[in-house]
Amino acid sequence: MSAIHPVILCGGSGTRLWPVSRKVMPKPFLPLVSDETLFEQAVSRVAGDARFAPPMVVAGAAHADLITAQLGQTAGARLVIEPAAKNTAPAIALAAALLPVDAVMLVCPSDHHIADSAAFRAAALAAAALAREDYLVSFGIAADRPETGYGYLRRGEPLAGGYAIRQFVEKPDLERAREYLASGEYSWNGGIFAFRAGHLLGELAAHRPEMARLVAEAVAGGVAEGARFHPAAAPFAEIEGDSIDYAVMENTARAAMVSADMGWSDIGNWAALADALAGEADEGGNVVRGSVDLAACRDVFATTDGPRISVVGLEGVCIIVSGDEVLVTTREGAQAVGKLPGAVNQ
Amino acid sequence: MSAIHPVILCGGSGTRLWPVSRKVMPKPFLPLVSDETLFEQAVSRVAGDARFAPPMVVAGAAHADLITAQLGQTAGARLVIEPAAKNTAPAIALAAALLPVDAVMLVCPSDHHIADSAAFRAAALAAAALAREDYLVSFGIAADRPETGYGYLRRGEPLAGGYAIRQFVEKPDLERAREYLASGEYSWNGGIFAFRAGHLLGELAAHRPEMARLVAEAVAGGVAEGARFHPAAAPFAEIEGDSIDYAVMENTARAAMVSADMGWSDIGNWAALADALAGEADEGGNVVRGSVDLAACRDVFATTDGPRISVVGLEGVCIIVSGDEVLVTTREGAQAVGKLPGAVNQ
Repeated sequence: MSAIHPVILCGGSGTRLWPVSRKVMPKPFLPLVSDETLFEQAVSRVAGDARFAPPMVVAGAAHADLITAQLGQTAGARLVIEPAAKNTAPAIALAAALLPVDAVMLVCPSDHHIADSAAFRAAALAAAALAREDYLVSFGIAADRPETGYGYLRRGEPLAGGYAIRQFVEKPDLERAREYLASGEYSWNGGIFAFRAGHLLGELAAHRPEMARLVAEAVAGGVAEGARFHPAAAPFAEIEGDSIDYAVMENTARAAMVSADMGWSDIGNWAALADALAGEADEGGNVVRGSVDLAACRDVFATTDGPRISVVGLEGVCIIVSGDEVLVTTREGAQAVGKLPGAVNQ
Repeated sequence: MSAIHPVILCGGSGTRLWPVSRKVMPKPFLPLVSDETLFEQAVSRVAGDARFAPPMVVAGAAHADLITAQLGQTAGARLVIEPAAKNTAPAIALAAALLPVDAVMLVCPSDHHIADSAAFRAAALAAAALAREDYLVSFGIAADRPETGYGYLRRGEPLAGGYAIRQFVEKPDLERAREYLASGEYSWNGGIFAFRAGHLLGELAAHRPEMARLVAEAVAGGVAEGARFHPAAAPFAEIEGDSIDYAVMENTARAAMVSADMGWSDIGNWAALADALAGEADEGGNVVRGSVDLAACRDVFATTDGPRISVVGLEGVCIIVSGDEVLVTTREGAQAVGKLPGAVNQ
């Protein structure tokens, strides 16, 4: 059985973790959950295991040197420089076009946290097996709460090691999210995929022919430079960007899913990071990083890169001090951080 | 009628307004409510009015230069340097011993805010008239809420321009504070006093003879240096410090009060400062100073000396950024700020 090719996507601005995540140093490249950055965790999750080939990373030019530094000595890693940010479908298609037509690619965001790497690899193997049978496979994350911030996948008929996808569901309101959780039929759409490269490109050509054509042109006109590949900028610039879900997954007749219960979080905002760090909480549920004094607090998350933070009497609040910015938000408000002037105008 | 002698007390550490108020730059010397500092406001409240003599300021050596700078061109101002902090009774007695025996002294804390200076002066004139008849006069501040952070004065028989004091009450619990407010018989003890200097010293000699003796020794052995007076340190060091309320007011048979409704606040904590600044609030009741972005907030007070503060979804919270300290407290928690490690170990 040929190895699975990890494709690690480094798009996204991560403004919801502002002010720590900034344009010049976005979320994947920060040591948010452990001493490793989220990107380093994505790489090491599939490293040192013969069932996985060296990773192919897709990223913008602004982060190329960060990525090279954080890849360190990862043997055989390749870096594809996106000439422009065009959402996930073109990024994935670039990688597919650069891999052997029969390669199974495992597409992973670089800015998620997965606590249980073994469960991740097991799900990846199941997904790869379905991909070899020309399914386009999504990871369905076991839902443990009525989350309104994620899309959902509804399970259909069983397949070997997974299920057909019966329905793609947009982010629901709370009432619907509760129904989904109660029904047991729904998983979160984790944005992790497995495809056979040639099959993915064929489906893209069927559902987004113009995008497929421009990606092929960008690859044909691209330039390799050591481990880096630079697709041609002009055709890539013409692409109308779209997500892989909209461009392909929701249109194909071959959508499948594997179930993954692996301690996953997209670390989508400060409250989500606090949850991912819950193992470090004190008896009041507080999680702190750096110099922090708490008095009479519950479920406070506070992190600082220098100045001391002192907190009295708060509950369910995230406090972030980074550089010349101080952010204080409720857990509920954390979703709106990306719309703050500081995050928008950085 | 001879002029009233303002005596401005600059004791107190003001740790409840940490981290802006610090040992080296405590609360009286900060422009908290307006462009003037609280000390400057205390001086200008009685300046340019022939009914008031130039002020006498009593303070520790650490703040002497700050005071001289903030006194500016105040003609005739004098500064008494306390050799040690011994609470209000010895500080007031020092001033009394340095004033003519028949002078009426008006004792004012330097760290309170009074919105209505005309009402203050009117109350001062009424208090001075009673002091000339050898009453020891407290200002009773019109109570507008069941405050548990202040002592109370209970009104007795009417006097000319004031009342006898029927009872001194320690800080009450909330239930009793509500009763006091409902009864209409109680005022807050604002820590503002009028005495005839010789009468105050006589009462002190009666109720605290050792303190009176040591203050007299400290003054007799003191050294004048221009507008500054340095009492002798050795006798002053032996004084057992006490407040003027405990040492004299609660023991005298001649305690009186005047009622004062003058927009008074002791700015005793961050919530009190927020209240004093309520005139600046936006429609959500938020008050901000410096670079602050608010989203979906109510009754938030935020002030920063540099870094931007961004806030999402909070209610009833004070956020203070000063130097290398960030404080976040509920309004209720504001009373406990002085006990934080940062405030204690500065």
